[in-house]
Amino acid sequence: MTVTQGHPVVEETLDPEDWDELRALGHRMVDDLLDYLRTVRERPVWRPIPPELRARFRVPVPRAPEGAERAYQDFRDHVLPHPMGNIHPRFWGWVIGTGTPLGALAEMLAAGMNPNMGGGDHVPNQVEAQVLDWCKEMLGYPLAASGLLVSGGSMANLVGLAVARHARAGFDVRQKGVRDAAGPLTVYGSVETHSSVRKAVELLGLGSEALRLAPVTDEFEIDLAALERMIAEDRLAGCRPICVVGNAGTVNTGALDDLGALAALCERERLWFHVDGAFGALAALVPEYRRRLAPMARADSLAFDLHKWMYVPFEAGCTLVRDAETHRRAFSLTPDYLAHAERGLAAGDLWFTDYGVQLTRGFRALKVWMSLKEHGLDKYGRLIGQNIEQARYLAGLVREAPDLELMAPVPLNIVCFRYCATGRGDAALDGLNQELLIQLHEQGIAVPSNALLGGRFALRVAIVNHRSRLDDFDLLVREVRRIGAELAARGG
Amino acid sequence: MTVTQGHPVVEETLDPEDWDELRALGHRMVDDLLDYLRTVRERPVWRPIPPELRARFRVPVPRAPEGAERAYQDFRDHVLPHPMGNIHPRFWGWVIGTGTPLGALAEMLAAGMNPNMGGGDHVPNQVEAQVLDWCKEMLGYPLAASGLLVSGGSMANLVGLAVARHARAGFDVRQKGVRDAAGPLTVYGSVETHSSVRKAVELLGLGSEALRLAPVTDEFEIDLAALERMIAEDRLAGCRPICVVGNAGTVNTGALDDLGALAALCERERLWFHVDGAFGALAALVPEYRRRLAPMARADSLAFDLHKWMYVPFEAGCTLVRDAETHRRAFSLTPDYLAHAERGLAAGDLWFTDYGVQLTRGFRALKVWMSLKEHGLDKYGRLIGQNIEQARYLAGLVREAPDLELMAPVPLNIVCFRYCATGRGDAALDGLNQELLIQLHEQGIAVPSNALLGGRFALRVAIVNHRSRLDDFDLLVREVRRIGAELAARGG
Repeated sequence: MTVTQGHPVVEETLDPEDWDELRALGHRMVDDLLDYLRTVRERPVWRPIPPELRARFRVPVPRAPEGAERAYQDFRDHVLPHPMGNIHPRFWGWVIGTGTPLGALAEMLAAGMNPNMGGGDHVPNQVEAQVLDWCKEMLGYPLAASGLLVSGGSMANLVGLAVARHARAGFDVRQKGVRDAAGPLTVYGSVETHSSVRKAVELLGLGSEALRLAPVTDEFEIDLAALERMIAEDRLAGCRPICVVGNAGTVNTGALDDLGALAALCERERLWFHVDGAFGALAALVPEYRRRLAPMARADSLAFDLHKWMYVPFEAGCTLVRDAETHRRAFSLTPDYLAHAERGLAAGDLWFTDYGVQLTRGFRALKVWMSLKEHGLDKYGRLIGQNIEQARYLAGLVREAPDLELMAPVPLNIVCFRYCATGRGDAALDGLNQELLIQLHEQGIAVPSNALLGGRFALRVAIVNHRSRLDDFDLLVREVRRIGAELAARGG
Repeated sequence: MTVTQGHPVVEETLDPEDWDELRALGHRMVDDLLDYLRTVRERPVWRPIPPELRARFRVPVPRAPEGAERAYQDFRDHVLPHPMGNIHPRFWGWVIGTGTPLGALAEMLAAGMNPNMGGGDHVPNQVEAQVLDWCKEMLGYPLAASGLLVSGGSMANLVGLAVARHARAGFDVRQKGVRDAAGPLTVYGSVETHSSVRKAVELLGLGSEALRLAPVTDEFEIDLAALERMIAEDRLAGCRPICVVGNAGTVNTGALDDLGALAALCERERLWFHVDGAFGALAALVPEYRRRLAPMARADSLAFDLHKWMYVPFEAGCTLVRDAETHRRAFSLTPDYLAHAERGLAAGDLWFTDYGVQLTRGFRALKVWMSLKEHGLDKYGRLIGQNIEQARYLAGLVREAPDLELMAPVPLNIVCFRYCATGRGDAALDGLNQELLIQLHEQGIAVPSNALLGGRFALRVAIVNHRSRLDDFDLLVREVRRIGAELAARGG
């Protein structure tokens, strides 16, 4: 209770009454969490949620305080035992990163300092600027480029395409809107282009019809001749092509488009060249892939994730844009009450909000910064290489097994295969492999996901996991063959 | 080193070699962070960054490992001493929340579990669903509504307006794009509407010209008659009005539009009613404001932040949408490889990626969930009320001081005022108050920001800070008058 100018008041705060109690709880959280991560291999990858547990999450908001201790107990007892599973060595579903112990601790520090990374002159902003410089450096992208850490690949693609729209519409699209375009503003990719590109094209008001998807080769790489024809035909039909999206690692099979050829095509056609390198861009850290990915440096914008193949906890994606001023002009509003000052907190030249959608931004840079210091860049290169080697190893096991079929080339870290019971057609195999996938999950063995390739259902293993070991893939193949044989015997 | 099928390999991981060492480091981080937060009041709110410190963030990416210990030392020695300042009791700049100690610990737990909240059948998704239900409950919004936790108010507004565009364009805007519209799709707000609404309108391809801003009353509330005229005139001119954005707490002065009247107008005109309640929506937890904010329940979509007036660490905003199916249809793509399954991890009915931009989503729900359990909803109501009382108290101090001038009504938690040296015109006062604001920052006393009101520069204090006490405002007024008098004496 304070007495101020005659006002006696009881002032409350959300700070703890007893800091030592919270400190002890914090220590227990660290202990429990590190034990949990250290022993993750001993537990099932995933397990079904019991119905009575679901019911716990259907109760009204607590009105009275339960305390920090109780809040943590509820987490430990009811949430922690049922993770998604992507921290486990045998999680290879979708393209979902693993996270690291220090990354989790860094998130605590970031949230404790809790800066708003929208702008202002404070050191956390310097950390983000340095992380962006490091990203440019490690991907061979020009240092004069602008950049922005974002929530992930979807937002990274959206930011890149928003700048593309702004730069190539041919009129002030921010002011006039897309309706002012003389002809449809068209965007190009391949049929293997990630769905987030479609989401971005829709959100930007271009319409999914304006997203033209070229066919792919047998290697699932964009068919360049077909792409060129589509662009020419669209121009003849009155469209205004603005952008080509190149894939550095497609989501289904990990295919890498011919980025050099796409860069040349975009220069020739004066189109914005955006590279979606959600996970694949980071393969540039592996010597074998460096040359193949070098043309990323010619992209006008480059989107990739740090929470996939850099293994940092969610969320951390990144967009780099070659022409910083174009990037700024595509987003900056800088309203009166945010006018940048000469001195004081509102000074400084790092106003990230001028480069993207968010105004309030968390300190996601810290976990990246601390992780790169902890391990050094070279180790990330080795780990990414290790995941690629694991994919090749798995592909080898699949090839050797008479009852398994490799469904696509393995150019990077993704392996698509299926169990093949003799004498069964594709429809029956689709059903069998669907059930097989679910049993892998339900039995807690491993979490692949699936892909449809040429209409056929494939088990899909995407390896962006620093905990996986070669023997995990031995186990996977053994179990797939066991369950597959059981299902085939049952006529499944 | 493992030997697998004859392959001898040294497999690496990002897990620590010595878990106990990391555990000890984690304990030290908890200790340091809690000490830092406990003693925050003893330090300056903000201080300038020395040039030699900036230089530290201009060095190349480390190639070799430096270790977790060293990474933490670099953070503690070079980053932690220069926060933005919003964790300090006398930070009232822009509208930037404070964070809490347990909130920071919760972020560590969230990043340790590291689920991808895009979808799937795991308990973290249940936690987000419960947090969304709690948000509906506390704001009196229908429980059948859909919702999504997002990065903050900018994204929350973007999601709401994207649904509005989809629902009211009158054609399939996702497929056809905005260019297909017969007339401009127009969106309405007041001149006090937040810049993030403009950013959203631009991003959605509608064009900033399609954002029509009605004038405001002396209380900075939207002029309803003028709004109605604008809509009628636009219809006559061939526009297709789709949405009105109502303000629950404007950024400049905290004004609340007449939401009941706006809801009625939108029903009459068949327009989408979106409420931007970034911070103001939460005032519904204070009995005095309940009735005034009750019409939020009639909004088609409602955007607000949990990292502002719920004080949780960044990032945590929220969009609620009354018609869940419309919300889903505005965003869902559900590509093949994400097809929702009947059983296994890929089952479940919580696919948040169907309701927004992000595909990968972090576990931001956990800090909200644990915080509401820790303190109970009633305490949040009292703290928000406390901030409002503090604003009134400060306004009273300003009114009593002969050399201070209140520049706007104080309907909520924002106080705009200036130092008034006698005999000086507005231009001179603008300059004096600008310098005064910078000195408040530079001397580490307090961080207000500023507003331009009727073209005049005002010091702006926005209170969403659970650490502020009444005597902090006594100190602010004392220091503003001291610095103001010094500057006036110098002819500044």
